[in-house]
Amino acid sequence: MTAGKLYLVPTRLDEEAPVLAALPAAVIERIHGLRDFVVEDAKSARRFLAACRHPVPLREISMTILDEHTAPREIATLLGPVREGRDLGLMSEAGLPAVADPGAALVAAAHAEGVSVVPLPGPSSILLALAASGLEGQRFRFVGYLPVRPAERRDRLRELEERSARDRETQIFIETPYRNEALLDDVLTTCRPTTRFAVASGLTGTNEHIRTATVSEWARRRAPLGKSPAVFLLLA
Amino acid sequence: MTAGKLYLVPTRLDEEAPVLAALPAAVIERIHGLRDFVVEDAKSARRFLAACRHPVPLREISMTILDEHTAPREIATLLGPVREGRDLGLMSEAGLPAVADPGAALVAAAHAEGVSVVPLPGPSSILLALAASGLEGQRFRFVGYLPVRPAERRDRLRELEERSARDRETQIFIETPYRNEALLDDVLTTCRPTTRFAVASGLTGTNEHIRTATVSEWARRRAPLGKSPAVFLLLA
Repeated sequence: MTAGKLYLVPTRLDEEAPVLAALPAAVIERIHGLRDFVVEDAKSARRFLAACRHPVPLREISMTILDEHTAPREIATLLGPVREGRDLGLMSEAGLPAVADPGAALVAAAHAEGVSVVPLPGPSSILLALAASGLEGQRFRFVGYLPVRPAERRDRLRELEERSARDRETQIFIETPYRNEALLDDVLTTCRPTTRFAVASGLTGTNEHIRTATVSEWARRRAPLGKSPAVFLLLA
Repeated sequence: MTAGKLYLVPTRLDEEAPVLAALPAAVIERIHGLRDFVVEDAKSARRFLAACRHPVPLREISMTILDEHTAPREIATLLGPVREGRDLGLMSEAGLPAVADPGAALVAAAHAEGVSVVPLPGPSSILLALAASGLEGQRFRFVGYLPVRPAERRDRLRELEERSARDRETQIFIETPYRNEALLDDVLTTCRPTTRFAVASGLTGTNEHIRTATVSEWARRRAPLGKSPAVFLLLA
């Protein structure tokens, strides 16, 4: 029996967007051939497969969960379908799996067992935000979420600004949408007036909004960021 | 007259791959509506538009060059079509423009003039490599090319390994394909045996090859990397 492959399945960045606006037709076709998935969130995975018009009824599709609560010792068992000769798809809530989510552990387990890993091309909000920001795209760093406590968050922002200046490197981070405005407050009170700051929210959706300006320009002309998921970028 | 928009146009990672395997159908349709482009390389841009079956004859399409030889003072003039009310597409040689290429300067100029920037979704070799490596995807850093001189290159590798260990962050870099083997030599002689090292080459093409292993495993079982463009990643 030949082992199956692990396909890294990209999903839409915006759940309202048509699948054909987000993914190559050949990728959608490849997804139609998969029956077994490891997903970050079952509900959004089901909505996505329905939007892809997956030819198999959803109740006949196997889905197991890999999220931040999954224990490391459970990871290898998720490769079960591959060992039984079936291809397996890994999906995160939005964008590319195994980037800014817990999926990398499954990919690492696949490499350890000699399972072929096939990354299917699709959008990444982190890289679309970077491209659209006009900030340094030849050197950049993604650091995930900032600390929740205000004092620590401001310390972290200062540290990121310093690193950006020293390495001429764009610093990229994310935040849960209801903290968008609080994060902007912190940037405006913490960062240097000349630092360039960018917010890319609602990427690829009808509410897409991208703005890059210096901290002093943001302070002078501030508009609400809204409640869409956003990517934040700074270059000192 | 309304100003045009600046579209960030993704291209294929592999020139042999069908466009429908690389880009969403809606993105290809959007490209069909553009008549003016700023491109990193005219030859590959023409091949790409032909592969997209662009409905306008190539001689009627305007292309200006933005590459590493473009002087900063020339950048703003490239936005001419936008000021005349026409949409403009920015394209790099492969993947997303304004990432790991000189395109960000044009995007920055667009923001400075209040021109809308629209990033069209498409593949990025850097992020596909990261996802497929199974290395840390919640914290990562892209540093571009390493220094050419061997001693400096090894110093840089040591520095990247140290940073990776300290920040638990995947370090990502690229190299011109004919130096792939020399770079692997340097990694094997410079990095710690337990450091995980990944090579993703020929992404999305028929020669796609992805391998993640510790430095000691690479040394024990080394296979030729080939001459395809590759992305390199390490996690100490």
